[in-house]
Amino acid sequence: MLTFIGLGLYDERSITIEGQEALRETDRVFAEFYTSKLVGTTLEAVEEYHDITIEVRDREGVEQHPEPILDAAESESVAFLTAGDTMISTTHVDLRLRAAERGIETRIIHGTTAEAAASSLTGLQNYRFGKATTLPFPYTESMGIPQSVIDTIEANRERGHHTLCYLDIKAERGDYMTADVAASLLAEDWDEDMLAVVVARAGSPDPIVAADRLDALATRDFGEPLHLLVIPGDLHHMEGEALAELAGAPRDAVEELSPN
Amino acid sequence: MLTFIGLGLYDERSITIEGQEALRETDRVFAEFYTSKLVGTTLEAVEEYHDITIEVRDREGVEQHPEPILDAAESESVAFLTAGDTMISTTHVDLRLRAAERGIETRIIHGTTAEAAASSLTGLQNYRFGKATTLPFPYTESMGIPQSVIDTIEANRERGHHTLCYLDIKAERGDYMTADVAASLLAEDWDEDMLAVVVARAGSPDPIVAADRLDALATRDFGEPLHLLVIPGDLHHMEGEALAELAGAPRDAVEELSPN
Repeated sequence: MLTFIGLGLYDERSITIEGQEALRETDRVFAEFYTSKLVGTTLEAVEEYHDITIEVRDREGVEQHPEPILDAAESESVAFLTAGDTMISTTHVDLRLRAAERGIETRIIHGTTAEAAASSLTGLQNYRFGKATTLPFPYTESMGIPQSVIDTIEANRERGHHTLCYLDIKAERGDYMTADVAASLLAEDWDEDMLAVVVARAGSPDPIVAADRLDALATRDFGEPLHLLVIPGDLHHMEGEALAELAGAPRDAVEELSPN
Repeated sequence: MLTFIGLGLYDERSITIEGQEALRETDRVFAEFYTSKLVGTTLEAVEEYHDITIEVRDREGVEQHPEPILDAAESESVAFLTAGDTMISTTHVDLRLRAAERGIETRIIHGTTAEAAASSLTGLQNYRFGKATTLPFPYTESMGIPQSVIDTIEANRERGHHTLCYLDIKAERGDYMTADVAASLLAEDWDEDMLAVVVARAGSPDPIVAADRLDALATRDFGEPLHLLVIPGDLHHMEGEALAELAGAPRDAVEELSPN
């Protein structure tokens, strides 16, 4: 039996009660933290809180050499953990398919996601978000923002839809793109006057939600990761009020996106 | 203090540990179940499990007469509960704005969402979903599917994006549209050969994920609500494998959506 369990957004208490109870019943616990991580805790704290020993696997250990995980799941009750929800990344669908091929029963226990938190914390309606995108680290000065990212945001804005921008994570190097860096990249390469919303530390007790024009966001410090950036499309009345009243968006910037 | 807490997808154990601990510290607990409900439990079971008394409010009690909730939150620690995540519906953004106007501190504790589960259980990548839509009950024989729903799905498919279709909920009447009804409506009004994926009871221990053409899905019984319907866009290799191997999609239907 292989149970995929999402740890949720922030710390050892972001998991559901169902997930916690399932952890108690497992014989072995594997986890990966290269797709995301729990910024509000440590591996040791998670192990202690749930009274488990976690065998952490890197990308190669999950994607290229998953046999030890599958072998264990054939004879024992095994849990596979990630931050957020375990199945949001295709990697783990691959692991689930390999398990199914071997006749291993699988189960998914969901976790809270950055996707939902981005809508929930900003007040932007979830069904008005278009396709999401990811802002990669520019590896050379000249690289800037990939055209595909701009195309996705533009296609959404043309339809009045919001865009959630995940910010690049290089967990192996401990690099997590911050929202001020993301805002400066978009301001330089595209439109410094565009309204955007920063969500920092979603799921923590003290998340920051800040709405302003890109050039202004680029000069601010939003503290520890993880950060997200949302580019709003058209703003319904309640959405505009939420950005202005709860996230400090300039009224004129909100007006520009509010259909009359 | 007004804390919005998402109960998650299914029963009293779908809430996060953080949410459970916050509930223990609140003086009063309000909830609404008209936007969704926990199908795996009862109000009494939730109250008993968390040792709380829940004051349920209908739509009018939340949208038109929220004063009792806000009055309480001015002097006491108050929790406001919904299934899923509390802020996915604009209604509750309105409640949060009213609280902010009165200087009441607010906080959000996230819950697992149908949106994330639809991606997680089907193996369809979350960042390849376009705008979501909702299939309403047709109130007359002639009504069928609103053009806006078809337009949303079409616009997503043109870009190769998946569409999550929420199914109408009339909680007051206890009416929850089932996926076979949704499939038959789309098959009759649009394209009976279209591949779709049913997700029934997401977040429960025994969710059903079934992929087939609309006319075939229309003849099946997926059991108790809540149900969701996903209309896939283009299928990447791993997504097609997931639908075929884990959800029983016909290979030829998967091939039709797989770019060469």
